[in-house]
Amino acid sequence: MKFGGTSMAGIERIRSVAARVKREVAAGNQVAVVVSAMAGETDRLVGFCREASPLYDPREYDVVVSAGEQVTSGLLAIALQAVGVPARSWLGWQLPIHTSDVFSRARIGEIDTAALDASLAKGEVAVIPGFQGVAEGGRITTLGRGGSDTSAVAVAAAMKAERCDIYTDVDGVYTTDPRIVPRARKLARVTYEEMLELASVGAKVLQTRSVGLAMKEGVRVQVLSSFTGEDAPMADTLPGTMIVGEEEITMERQLITGIAHDKNEAKITLTNVPDKPGAVAAIFAPLAEAGINVDMIVQNVAHSTGSTDVTFTVPGADLPRSLDVLGQAREAIGFEKLVHDTRVAKISVVGVGMRSHAGVASTMFTTLGERGINILAITTSEIKVSVLIEEDYTELAVRVLHTAYGLDAEAA
Amino acid sequence: MKFGGTSMAGIERIRSVAARVKREVAAGNQVAVVVSAMAGETDRLVGFCREASPLYDPREYDVVVSAGEQVTSGLLAIALQAVGVPARSWLGWQLPIHTSDVFSRARIGEIDTAALDASLAKGEVAVIPGFQGVAEGGRITTLGRGGSDTSAVAVAAAMKAERCDIYTDVDGVYTTDPRIVPRARKLARVTYEEMLELASVGAKVLQTRSVGLAMKEGVRVQVLSSFTGEDAPMADTLPGTMIVGEEEITMERQLITGIAHDKNEAKITLTNVPDKPGAVAAIFAPLAEAGINVDMIVQNVAHSTGSTDVTFTVPGADLPRSLDVLGQAREAIGFEKLVHDTRVAKISVVGVGMRSHAGVASTMFTTLGERGINILAITTSEIKVSVLIEEDYTELAVRVLHTAYGLDAEAA
Repeated sequence: MKFGGTSMAGIERIRSVAARVKREVAAGNQVAVVVSAMAGETDRLVGFCREASPLYDPREYDVVVSAGEQVTSGLLAIALQAVGVPARSWLGWQLPIHTSDVFSRARIGEIDTAALDASLAKGEVAVIPGFQGVAEGGRITTLGRGGSDTSAVAVAAAMKAERCDIYTDVDGVYTTDPRIVPRARKLARVTYEEMLELASVGAKVLQTRSVGLAMKEGVRVQVLSSFTGEDAPMADTLPGTMIVGEEEITMERQLITGIAHDKNEAKITLTNVPDKPGAVAAIFAPLAEAGINVDMIVQNVAHSTGSTDVTFTVPGADLPRSLDVLGQAREAIGFEKLVHDTRVAKISVVGVGMRSHAGVASTMFTTLGERGINILAITTSEIKVSVLIEEDYTELAVRVLHTAYGLDAEAA
Repeated sequence: MKFGGTSMAGIERIRSVAARVKREVAAGNQVAVVVSAMAGETDRLVGFCREASPLYDPREYDVVVSAGEQVTSGLLAIALQAVGVPARSWLGWQLPIHTSDVFSRARIGEIDTAALDASLAKGEVAVIPGFQGVAEGGRITTLGRGGSDTSAVAVAAAMKAERCDIYTDVDGVYTTDPRIVPRARKLARVTYEEMLELASVGAKVLQTRSVGLAMKEGVRVQVLSSFTGEDAPMADTLPGTMIVGEEEITMERQLITGIAHDKNEAKITLTNVPDKPGAVAAIFAPLAEAGINVDMIVQNVAHSTGSTDVTFTVPGADLPRSLDVLGQAREAIGFEKLVHDTRVAKISVVGVGMRSHAGVASTMFTTLGERGINILAITTSEIKVSVLIEEDYTELAVRVLHTAYGLDAEAA
């Protein structure tokens, strides 16, 4: 079981987490719990480090920020004991959770489970701070922001757990954002691949990294809400969304599983780029060197003048840096104008079902075209079709696609 | 160097601690720094534990409350690096600082200094969180409130440091409380024994436990103020008070070193206790069993009825429990009335010089008698005479004794 910062924000909530853990124990399960810091605490500690020095030593940063989860893991152990559940905390260096020594964004290596297994076998609940581990040589590491989901999946994998239940502030994964489409349906199951596409295109339920790890290790992850009342049925009778391998999805498959949107993209167009070999490389090589991920790329048909326009998208946060990099490479690329637009949105339809069906993309283009929504760029993968549109049309596009692919729930 | 919670309260202050450490390094010294948590932080964490369960597991309490010093040690390391001083934090379990497994009030055993020595030899400043250690088996321990002074002395002893500088919010040890006697003088040197008596009778500068350890290990402790401006001369040119062994005090010794007062005592009188063997044991045995420290004891001359009155003092905080214990033992003791009074104060004159001089006590009694101050009880040790008086006379008594023993500074 993994609980996020909102679930750990204050002793009242930690008590209700303890009650929920107790129900799992009462159901006969052996339980390890991974916890985040209290909501706001990590920001506070990160703020201290930045204030102490903008160029802080990441090894010391890790000593500071790992304290937040240390506190909540001790407190949850106390709260569990208070309701009669034997429990103890295991800090990252105590288990230990071995990681790389890339401080402040370490990767989990091996997790020693001998002590953990012995503790669970004694009937104890193990409480493990998320987000932290220990490097070779014994210094504390952290996994980067949101790393607690990854900790939970890694611990579940190491323990060969039957399930990794991630409690969050949504009660599952939906066919699309229910704030946009009230008739969005909660998905009972979704594959790792679909979840990766849904997460990376904006359905922010789980850290992408944790889903990738779950896929690699075959960990069955369940997304559940932390905020059902204490008298609600146990987690396993009020299911959220299970994230599983494709082989577990046996029933008649929907063509499309969900529709995601992402307003955090920025579109860049370079006009009159010489239409010759190496021109495109001259654009994307310096961006890659700067660590900027380019997503959608459109190269227009060459003008009669022997030049062409190139359009692509980058994460909105990377826009200023991208413009800077491209400005510096202007001579090498030979473009005329550098135009950018942040008022764009990426809309994606996702589903493993589309592997065996043609026509998904054409349904998408037709549906959007009928509403007069202009498509600025297109990108596809085996289980996803994404289009870039003007930001103002985001909600309309999501709604008409949700209906077009038959995802709307029956009216209540 | 050891800095308390007020010195660590916020990044601005941590920066000024870093500047002070830098001056020591610039003077050619190898430095280890022991730090407290930010002022208020330990209380906040203790509050969480109590709220989670009044009967919290001390092992988990230690996980929670040790986080405060973990944060400040990382932050000071960052602040030191920012001013060009190589530094790294060493948590209790990393050195390690071995302690007993009496969680929440552990005692320091051995400190491994191999890693520490290597770090200092490389020119690094070692930043060590106070108040924490690690028990056999690898769980975090804490030393009890105020334990950071003890950590500092223990680290200094293990490293065979030349000096242990404890920065606090007073600039040294005075002949008495300067708020009562403006002409109190700062002492350049005081012996461990005197400091113990002064501390335990109310001159609260250092944890008693840390002074005891310094005496046992022969660590020269210097008490200094953290709040001299950054441009003040270095610590070793603006001395506070050195706490040292008696052999270091070579100059003509003052008869009396200082005068302490303590208003936190409570007086208890049992009337008409049978004057027979075992009667006194019947009073003090149950108090001892309850862990209550009895300090001053006066047994009056027996009444003609074959009974006597017994008066003694206990710490004010233990009064309710003491009355409870004695009430339950009433039959066994056979007293008539149980009378108590918290409006009393203990005044002590302290000085190793009195070993070789008679007349210290008689000067005290005469001086107080001349001012009409009634003495309710007396207790003495080799280097101390204490009297119990009515609380209202506290300041008057301290002033007249300060003058009588020749402690007043020359008028400025």
